[in-house]
Amino acid sequence: MRFGILGTGMVGRTIAARLDELSHEVMIGTRDVAVTMGRTDPDRMGNPAYLVWQREHPKIRLATFAEAAAHGEVLVNATLGSVSLEALGMAGADNLDGKILIDVSNPLDFSRGMPPTLTVANSDSMAEQIQRTFPRARVVKTLNIVTASLMVVPARVAGADHTVFLSGNDAEAKTKVAELLRSFGWKDIFDLGDITTARGAEMYLPLWLRLLGAAQTPMFNVKLTR
Amino acid sequence: MRFGILGTGMVGRTIAARLDELSHEVMIGTRDVAVTMGRTDPDRMGNPAYLVWQREHPKIRLATFAEAAAHGEVLVNATLGSVSLEALGMAGADNLDGKILIDVSNPLDFSRGMPPTLTVANSDSMAEQIQRTFPRARVVKTLNIVTASLMVVPARVAGADHTVFLSGNDAEAKTKVAELLRSFGWKDIFDLGDITTARGAEMYLPLWLRLLGAAQTPMFNVKLTR
Repeated sequence: MRFGILGTGMVGRTIAARLDELSHEVMIGTRDVAVTMGRTDPDRMGNPAYLVWQREHPKIRLATFAEAAAHGEVLVNATLGSVSLEALGMAGADNLDGKILIDVSNPLDFSRGMPPTLTVANSDSMAEQIQRTFPRARVVKTLNIVTASLMVVPARVAGADHTVFLSGNDAEAKTKVAELLRSFGWKDIFDLGDITTARGAEMYLPLWLRLLGAAQTPMFNVKLTR
Repeated sequence: MRFGILGTGMVGRTIAARLDELSHEVMIGTRDVAVTMGRTDPDRMGNPAYLVWQREHPKIRLATFAEAAAHGEVLVNATLGSVSLEALGMAGADNLDGKILIDVSNPLDFSRGMPPTLTVANSDSMAEQIQRTFPRARVVKTLNIVTASLMVVPARVAGADHTVFLSGNDAEAKTKVAELLRSFGWKDIFDLGDITTARGAEMYLPLWLRLLGAAQTPMFNVKLTR
């Protein structure tokens, strides 16, 4: 299947590489291809420049947000929550029309110190803002509760014996995203309900951040036990 | 040990009954004893009047917030988050002085419809407000992430193979609360850190509420998997 991944950070790269490994046709979108390819230094987190990563993944093509969105039958928003609406606007509403848009972003605000707070919470969520702004996209919120490497290979922790959540208004879109998640190795996929339930998944992040601080590793998740 | 439980709702009653069962000396505090004992109808949730419950628990004494707080060597705030500061004010700062105050409350706002939102979140928490208002109390946030019957008998779900969190500034207080939790049957007790980490535990509630809605039962929890 053809995928368009919006965002060249570690989350976008990790999802793109996994989809490529699973024989999908992957295009990554960025704001400005020349700028992204022109960087040679590692980013602030110490991740290698995109160019370095690109050389190791020759089948994955880098393009603009709009080109990647036009390419994909299924799209993934892997941009920072703070710029997601802008990036999706550059992707273009027509390129999102009728497509499944998997939103893995978190609306983190790093401006008030560490750990970050949320820019939207409680009576709204990033996923709802995206769905409202692009009503013809079929938004499914998922995977935002785990670190990138666990998103795509959940078996890296506890043999994948832990839970991922889905939120979205389109039942068929959620079914297809669940199939994709199973292809990544997810076994326990829990449908929270409509897109407003993304508030729950996003507001879990403050707990995730404290678990990260106490556990000193991002290699964890929660399992829903009943 | 002597416990003072603030709050006569289902959470307060459930914790009081469990402590009584474990042979502790329990006093429950309320705003006005005559009013609480004068009610005969079930509450809005269909729970029996306090009077009915009291007859089944003859060793547990009902008193004012101040009397219950004076009685307890360890105190439990089981009032609604929206009235917790007022109830603790009525309990009296002197009666909290140097004592462990276990805060199991959630700052839920039901005025904006269901599911409720949080009255405080993101850059503050109920537990921090309590600790700031009563600096000589040794506040430990815990148990707020599960329904009352699981708080006191975690084995009711998955043989207690799930996690409870602790937040607080006082390491000795957290150690003692962990001992109490083990006496309830908790096996996996995870220390998130200082009292600011209660933001994480409280902001998990919106996810809990969606899990409740989708699972149609409150008998669940999450297990931290690593």
